[in-house]
Amino acid sequence: MYKAIISITLRPSILDPEGKTVHHGLKNLGFTQVDDVRMGKHAEIRIDTTDEEEARRVATEACEQLLANPVTENFEIELEEVASEAA
Amino acid sequence: MYKAIISITLRPSILDPEGKTVHHGLKNLGFTQVDDVRMGKHAEIRIDTTDEEEARRVATEACEQLLANPVTENFEIELEEVASEAA
Repeated sequence: MYKAIISITLRPSILDPEGKTVHHGLKNLGFTQVDDVRMGKHAEIRIDTTDEEEARRVATEACEQLLANPVTENFEIELEEVASEAA
Repeated sequence: MYKAIISITLRPSILDPEGKTVHHGLKNLGFTQVDDVRMGKHAEIRIDTTDEEEARRVATEACEQLLANPVTENFEIELEEVASEAA
């Protein structure tokens, strides 16, 4: 069993209104050292396979087909081998 | 200048409707090996300091005060030293 830890972020050239809003909020709270904020999505997917390459393929296809917008977003995948949960 | 890469996830005991919806969507697309999906938030914060400990303190306080709900969410922080952008 593998766990794919996926971070999906907007491409750098794309305006990030959510990031701007969080940045503004942090400034109001006195976080003057915060220079920029970019927000994105985090996903953790448990994949039922013992083959790391297959886990990477499944996670990549899941991003390409559903989780990430190929036009505006980038995604990064980290894989961890995890114990199968008791049935 | 440091970049804090933050992942904010629901505590394991908390029901994750967004994760269930994505899991359902992946099943409909034929991803039968996907066993479970947990969704969360990803944030990248640029912090104007040369001191790693200070960057970690700022990122932790930003999570505690704004980004993460202390009752329902956990957060993890990774720090990277990055070049300052030209003014």
